[in-house]
Amino acid sequence: MHNQYMRKAIELAKKGTGHTNPNPLVGAVIVKNNKVIGEGYHHYYGGPHAEVDAFNNATEDVKGATMYVTLEPCSHYGKTPPCAKAIVEKGIAQVVIAMRDPNPLVAGNGIGILRESGIEVISEVLESEAKNLNEIFVKYITTEMPFCILKTAMTLDGKIATATGDSKWITNEESRQYVHEIRHQVSSIMVGIGTVLVDDPQLTTRLHNQEGSDPIRVIVDTEAKTPLWAQVLQLSSKVRTIIATTEKADPNKIKALEEKGAEVIIIPLKNNQVDLKCLIQQLGAKGIDSVLIEGGATLNDSALQEGIVDKVVSFIAPKIVGGAKAKTPVGGDGIKYMKDAIQLTDIQVRKFGQDIMIEGYLGKGE
Amino acid sequence: MHNQYMRKAIELAKKGTGHTNPNPLVGAVIVKNNKVIGEGYHHYYGGPHAEVDAFNNATEDVKGATMYVTLEPCSHYGKTPPCAKAIVEKGIAQVVIAMRDPNPLVAGNGIGILRESGIEVISEVLESEAKNLNEIFVKYITTEMPFCILKTAMTLDGKIATATGDSKWITNEESRQYVHEIRHQVSSIMVGIGTVLVDDPQLTTRLHNQEGSDPIRVIVDTEAKTPLWAQVLQLSSKVRTIIATTEKADPNKIKALEEKGAEVIIIPLKNNQVDLKCLIQQLGAKGIDSVLIEGGATLNDSALQEGIVDKVVSFIAPKIVGGAKAKTPVGGDGIKYMKDAIQLTDIQVRKFGQDIMIEGYLGKGE
Repeated sequence: MHNQYMRKAIELAKKGTGHTNPNPLVGAVIVKNNKVIGEGYHHYYGGPHAEVDAFNNATEDVKGATMYVTLEPCSHYGKTPPCAKAIVEKGIAQVVIAMRDPNPLVAGNGIGILRESGIEVISEVLESEAKNLNEIFVKYITTEMPFCILKTAMTLDGKIATATGDSKWITNEESRQYVHEIRHQVSSIMVGIGTVLVDDPQLTTRLHNQEGSDPIRVIVDTEAKTPLWAQVLQLSSKVRTIIATTEKADPNKIKALEEKGAEVIIIPLKNNQVDLKCLIQQLGAKGIDSVLIEGGATLNDSALQEGIVDKVVSFIAPKIVGGAKAKTPVGGDGIKYMKDAIQLTDIQVRKFGQDIMIEGYLGKGE
Repeated sequence: MHNQYMRKAIELAKKGTGHTNPNPLVGAVIVKNNKVIGEGYHHYYGGPHAEVDAFNNATEDVKGATMYVTLEPCSHYGKTPPCAKAIVEKGIAQVVIAMRDPNPLVAGNGIGILRESGIEVISEVLESEAKNLNEIFVKYITTEMPFCILKTAMTLDGKIATATGDSKWITNEESRQYVHEIRHQVSSIMVGIGTVLVDDPQLTTRLHNQEGSDPIRVIVDTEAKTPLWAQVLQLSSKVRTIIATTEKADPNKIKALEEKGAEVIIIPLKNNQVDLKCLIQQLGAKGIDSVLIEGGATLNDSALQEGIVDKVVSFIAPKIVGGAKAKTPVGGDGIKYMKDAIQLTDIQVRKFGQDIMIEGYLGKGE
């Protein structure tokens, strides 16, 4: 019973996807006499919290009802008054929570307020689903570093392009639509200058069925070689483009890029390139809670070397192109021994038509 | 009801795996008054057919019963008298068949004999499962060419070894056991001389839970460089080792290999290497109905180029090693444009622990 209503709350939470960052996705359901009398979710950053939205939508008096909420109600005065207090004032009798607040500074405070007021609190119902839903928020709130997803796409023989460099298209339309869904979920998308020069991508979210939220575009561009005509600078999208460059860049070029509307940030050098870890920290400081890395073999290698990757999403198309010189998802010098390979955990597999998607996490359970 | 008994017959057929080649896997179930009164299968090449085995095991008089058999009963006098006649003589009332005989010369003859004798015949029950079960037999009986399975194993970033050449191990124990199951199913296993020199494999079937049938070992060795101390020549296995070489080989070395017990066959050259298509034809002529190619990037590329591959079985381990120079499953010059990629169909995905296996077919549905 608890699971059923909590699942409903999780489904509601997902409706905020792409619009709440860097806030969490939260859903709430109010139940009285085995009947749902109110539903709500956090619609967008700065908007009412899920609990308040549910109260606003309630069709009956909520006094004595049970509230299901995917995240521990907040206890602090932020953009909105604390939800824990609102729940007490409304006379809710029982609160069922999927996960505690991941922020160690406030975790348990909301539950404390509720319990002190005599409300029965049941927690950790569908906790892992809730944590999974808010993996971006959990990482960002606890580390101030963005959650980084490395997305790759290859053939069944491990190639991200043919030996001649052709890569259109490896995956099918369904897979590519799913990538746009991920773009919609994250705050930013990152590519290397190599990808800009070769593919001239737009890096916007293009969903068939709904309005997508465009991620901030981040170009890793050590020498500021991004062409002024590049599509990432044609700001058809409302979100900004950040060019991460270094002292190796020509100041005049930086000025020209800024005149085109780009935000240029100077990052220290590491191995003669943009220090990726430093860049990621700076993105976190700007309130960017997530990065989708859609790089080539070189950027992917650097990102893994620097240990900034949290999750890998790998698309595999059931086709073979061959070619000893064709590029693979991760380049660089590589790891010497198979036993030292970077191991992914919590592997999930999904099919998009005949394509296969494999996703897994780094650095969990170690 | 029909499906249930036919599924039972298919399960029985599988028991002959690894022992019937180049004969098909066949299972039979005799049902009377909704009760199974006889079960049988083709145990080994030259042994009684499934129908006869089921009659032998019958616990009641089979007169008036229904027989479920996975393959159309044979109509010819071979090593055993025709099963169609035996079915008539036993007084079976109804025969349910999963698939017709794939041999175009005899297809329908068995069914014809049954129907002429007044037996009701229902055919194509679970046909696709039965065809799948006998994909090796179907290919071999219709083309006289062995069914070729290309097996690869790579990391999630497309590598079959690290940049330094280390490949032990990419996949986990469960995946490797499954490869031994495939070795058990096929008549022969093929590797290139490169693999023999680098890995010195045994190429035998090593199953934990049952006695495995070893495949004939086939080494593609243009210049007969197989070392006399190689494990493939230490004939711990009863099955033979075939060295496929060319006129480029030193006759003295050929003699030495033969003295070690190997069967050396001279194959014409193509692009300065063993002509793989010609080799495969010769293996077919020797009664070898299937080949598991466990090659490196070069042999895999040649096999695909020559169009001898029927099925690809690809293992993917959820680990990343990087390395721009690390080898991938298929080498060579490669295909120029992604749109011309070799497309696999009928994709199946399976998990072995955290490893993922993707299998698909070439040249189907075109």
